[in-house]
Amino acid sequence: MELTVYLAGQIHDNWRSELKNKAKQMELPIHFVGPMENHDRSDNIGQEIKGEQPSAIFKDEAASEINNLRTQVLLNKSDVVIALFGENYKQWNSAMDAGTAIALQKPLILIRPESLHHPLKEIANKAQVVVETEEQALKALSYIFETN
Amino acid sequence: MELTVYLAGQIHDNWRSELKNKAKQMELPIHFVGPMENHDRSDNIGQEIKGEQPSAIFKDEAASEINNLRTQVLLNKSDVVIALFGENYKQWNSAMDAGTAIALQKPLILIRPESLHHPLKEIANKAQVVVETEEQALKALSYIFETN
Amino acid sequence: MELTVYLAGQIHDNWRSELKNKAKQMELPIHFVGPMENHDRSDNIGQEIKGEQPSAIFKDEAASEINNLRTQVLLNKSDVVIALFGENYKQWNSAMDAGTAIALQKPLILIRPESLHHPLKEIANKAQVVVETEEQALKALSYIFETN
Amino acid sequence: MELTVYLAGQIHDNWRSELKNKAKQMELPIHFVGPMENHDRSDNIGQEIKGEQPSAIFKDEAASEINNLRTQVLLNKSDVVIALFGENYKQWNSAMDAGTAIALQKPLILIRPESLHHPLKEIANKAQVVVETEEQALKALSYIFETN
Amino acid sequence: MELTVYLAGQIHDNWRSELKNKAKQMELPIHFVGPMENHDRSDNIGQEIKGEQPSAIFKDEAASEINNLRTQVLLNKSDVVIALFGENYKQWNSAMDAGTAIALQKPLILIRPESLHHPLKEIANKAQVVVETEEQALKALSYIFETN
Amino acid sequence: MELTVYLAGQIHDNWRSELKNKAKQMELPIHFVGPMENHDRSDNIGQEIKGEQPSAIFKDEAASEINNLRTQVLLNKSDVVIALFGENYKQWNSAMDAGTAIALQKPLILIRPESLHHPLKEIANKAQVVVETEEQALKALSYIFETN
Amino acid sequence: MELTVYLAGQIHDNWRSELKNKAKQMELPIHFVGPMENHDRSDNIGQEIKGEQPSAIFKDEAASEINNLRTQVLLNKSDVVIALFGENYKQWNSAMDAGTAIALQKPLILIRPESLHHPLKEIANKAQVVVETEEQALKALSYIFETN
Amino acid sequence: MELTVYLAGQIHDNWRSELKNKAKQMELPIHFVGPMENHDRSDNIGQEIKGEQPSAIFKDEAASEINNLRTQVLLNKSDVVIALFGENYKQWNSAMDAGTAIALQKPLILIRPESLHHPLKEIANKAQVVVETEEQALKALSYIFETN
Repeated sequence: MELTVYLAGQIHDNWRSELKNKAKQMELPIHFVGPMENHDRSDNIGQEIKGEQPSAIFKDEAASEINNLRTQVLLNKSDVVIALFGENYKQWNSAMDAGTAIALQKPLILIRPESLHHPLKEIANKAQVVVETEEQALKALSYIFETN
Repeated sequence: MELTVYLAGQIHDNWRSELKNKAKQMELPIHFVGPMENHDRSDNIGQEIKGEQPSAIFKDEAASEINNLRTQVLLNKSDVVIALFGENYKQWNSAMDAGTAIALQKPLILIRPESLHHPLKEIANKAQVVVETEEQALKALSYIFETN
Repeated sequence: MELTVYLAGQIHDNWRSELKNKAKQMELPIHFVGPMENHDRSDNIGQEIKGEQPSAIFKDEAASEINNLRTQVLLNKSDVVIALFGENYKQWNSAMDAGTAIALQKPLILIRPESLHHPLKEIANKAQVVVETEEQALKALSYIFETN
Repeated sequence: MELTVYLAGQIHDNWRSELKNKAKQMELPIHFVGPMENHDRSDNIGQEIKGEQPSAIFKDEAASEINNLRTQVLLNKSDVVIALFGENYKQWNSAMDAGTAIALQKPLILIRPESLHHPLKEIANKAQVVVETEEQALKALSYIFETN
Repeated sequence: MELTVYLAGQIHDNWRSELKNKAKQMELPIHFVGPMENHDRSDNIGQEIKGEQPSAIFKDEAASEINNLRTQVLLNKSDVVIALFGENYKQWNSAMDAGTAIALQKPLILIRPESLHHPLKEIANKAQVVVETEEQALKALSYIFETN
Repeated sequence: MELTVYLAGQIHDNWRSELKNKAKQMELPIHFVGPMENHDRSDNIGQEIKGEQPSAIFKDEAASEINNLRTQVLLNKSDVVIALFGENYKQWNSAMDAGTAIALQKPLILIRPESLHHPLKEIANKAQVVVETEEQALKALSYIFETN
Repeated sequence: MELTVYLAGQIHDNWRSELKNKAKQMELPIHFVGPMENHDRSDNIGQEIKGEQPSAIFKDEAASEINNLRTQVLLNKSDVVIALFGENYKQWNSAMDAGTAIALQKPLILIRPESLHHPLKEIANKAQVVVETEEQALKALSYIFETN
Repeated sequence: MELTVYLAGQIHDNWRSELKNKAKQMELPIHFVGPMENHDRSDNIGQEIKGEQPSAIFKDEAASEINNLRTQVLLNKSDVVIALFGENYKQWNSAMDAGTAIALQKPLILIRPESLHHPLKEIANKAQVVVETEEQALKALSYIFETN
């Protein structure tokens, strides 16, 4: 049995590649997917494909067309969603993805620093698992495959 | 025909009562519901019902149990969801509610200042309607009832 | 028992008001809903609510935001969808509404002139009932309420 | 990860084979499916299987039985739907397929010439991505597979 | 609380009116719906609405368009489905309605003479309740409303 | 707005009537439904309706046919499910009802003595709210209706 | 692409093995599944697994437990359902399977002799394809795989 | 065709490994999954991953977060659920899993000693198959794969 896990959350540091490396070391049969992590490419992809837009708002709208296509296709393919929240960004799309996953009855693992417990309390309550580090999230995933 | 509309979003100013007043003036047959707007009551409701909790995190978890009960019941009853985002708060629960509404195929009206277009671009793209003011949102709702 | 029936299709003549009048004469307990029939208002509603847009395409996109909000809310409330197709217009939104109704397992009544049978054959095959006149559609609806 | 993409839309030119060729050059792991593109075979398949029919309408009904079987099976298997609209045909079945895809929460990519923006505005608003060329649609699909 | 109950099954005797009379005597808050019980009207309704058809098969197809419209609308409105099977008729549409009700998670009450237990065993196993008389079915419905 | 709340759980004491009385005093617009609370009637209803059965197992099967009909109809009508677990009974049907409610995305309020926290930990984790007394459950329900 | 096709219908002659042989000759990538075709085994499987039952009715109930397990598992795995009806049997389970397939939005191919058109008219109207022979059904399935 | 079967129920003896061994001897193409069977690990997994908790209740809540993640992921992947109930344990989570499986339209096989027929009667009635031994459950699964 293999699992597909969508990695929602901020794209401003390399937490995904660290998590994937650790998963590889643990030999977990997991295929990780997620959003475009190249921030510039993510912001510009709309204009790159659809051409120049009349304003910053329309540039954003064009970019999010393509980014949401990617998210919807990959989220539909996933068995579990991990959402990581950090101190510095708004990450409203991550919270929306979390809500979508829950409504589709896909379990959510929330990773967040303890300092963010208050603003994330409603998402934490809806998440199946709440942890503080990527390592803890991987241990929870690893537990799914454990046999006696 | 009557509609039920859930008002997601920040609970730090009185935008909901202003919106409801305008809707009353426009004589729209809409029943508005939403989260607890008394911020202290919302934060303390868990301990008030479940008793003292061992830490701030568990106090938050207890509060969000009750707040999410309210949200889930009222969201299930709603035909449309309005989510308002402002400059000052994280509002991750509003973004999660938006994601839930969309996954349940309930149309979302997003109200946000133009200055927030970039961090809200993915939610804006998923929303059925994006506007900047409560008045615009009401005009969109009013249009549903218009006859020739 | 009352039914709500959505009247999809062209907004260029007064077929809806004729159909509603006949239904009133037949004393059918049906509440009819449908798109905005004032063509100019339908085309301009986006700019009226959201302000001037940078081009005709963006004006159309703004209008369809609001028009689709209306359609989604009213379609969700409906028990049956009637779609009327005529000779003169593209009516792609009517065909999309028909597809949506069918996927949501709401029965579709298709009204079309015999001359259009070829281009409408796939929709006709998916429709629960195919007729040529509004009167026939009303007879089919009336039959739902008949007792012996 | 592989994707299955349904190519809805007109069957009167060879846009599908061009799109598939480009996808092969781009080495995209996509399996394309779609309607019967041989127009005569599509129109006659009902009589070929079910025998002669009493009129042109019943011939069409017989053909659409078989064509819709094909569409429903392949659409159920698909992760994404592309719908291409051109200037010359009614393409109501493509619009119905678009509506079905959206109601089933499968993302839609709409390809259409700018000249058709007005009659397609409601479908464009429901589509996840709107572009003008097959190449742009493929770039959007390609973006789903991109890693950093 | 009121319930709507669909009465599937043969339309060749007056079991429905007897059942409704008993329910009225028991003062059950139940609204009963069901197919057209006038057999001739049921068989001819297609031609009455759609005009003369080219053969007996097409006459049947036209009639079942309208009959299935009625069934789908009323089944969607129902909380419980009762299906009665007797010795003399094929009643395949009743069995199809039973399968539809079960797949839609609406409970089925099967009424059948003991002599039919063998050919009805798979439906009996899927039914929530299996009885032999209309009176037993009404007692089961009555039990839903009982308080201590 | 009114809510319907299903009261799952043991039928061996009068917790439901106490809860309903308190709700009446609090003037909550809630319609409570639940299983047959007369234990003997619940055990015998199968034989009463279907006649004598060949063994105790078949008597139980007949009873549960009718009891599950009641549960399924009333659960489908409910907005919230409360499940109360006590020390003395197996209450496996209550746990099954809890699982059904959660899978149907209806929020669950679990009432249980602290002493049962260990065997109920998985249900507690799935429940939206976990409390120890009926009064606490009513406070949580009351909170849904509170306005500022 | 491979398809799984469930062969519902009578188990009293060898129509399934003939159909499978023809499909093999046509080299269709289809995996056929269906009910137990050994009639005695199908009738006795309940007692074989669960032990002797107190009456013919309970023997039938035990058998249908196991037969319906098989049907539900295989139907869930299927992309298309074929139901064949013949002159000689009641085949109510086939009609129930047809209703289930349609409600689950899986396309149904109905095979029936023309002589049965009247009692099967409602199922025929709900079926995606109606034919008279297994060969015609296979041609319809083959058409799904055809490329130009 | 392969099946995935989730083995719900008590984790206090080795019934699962016995069942898996017999399935291997019978050469059934079934992949069995289930909960963590190491009781201590199951109880402690929350603290192992999330750190020490403030009380036994919070330790249980932490453990069930992780255990329910495992269950939800594996249940979503399963075609059939087997639930075994024994004399000695409360097994409320097994009953909840049974309710979840049924609501998701996955067939349930219930294994229970005859002595437990009374408290399990509602689950037995909802189960597709009720047997007393693991061997009987395997025979029922084996029957799905049988060909003539």
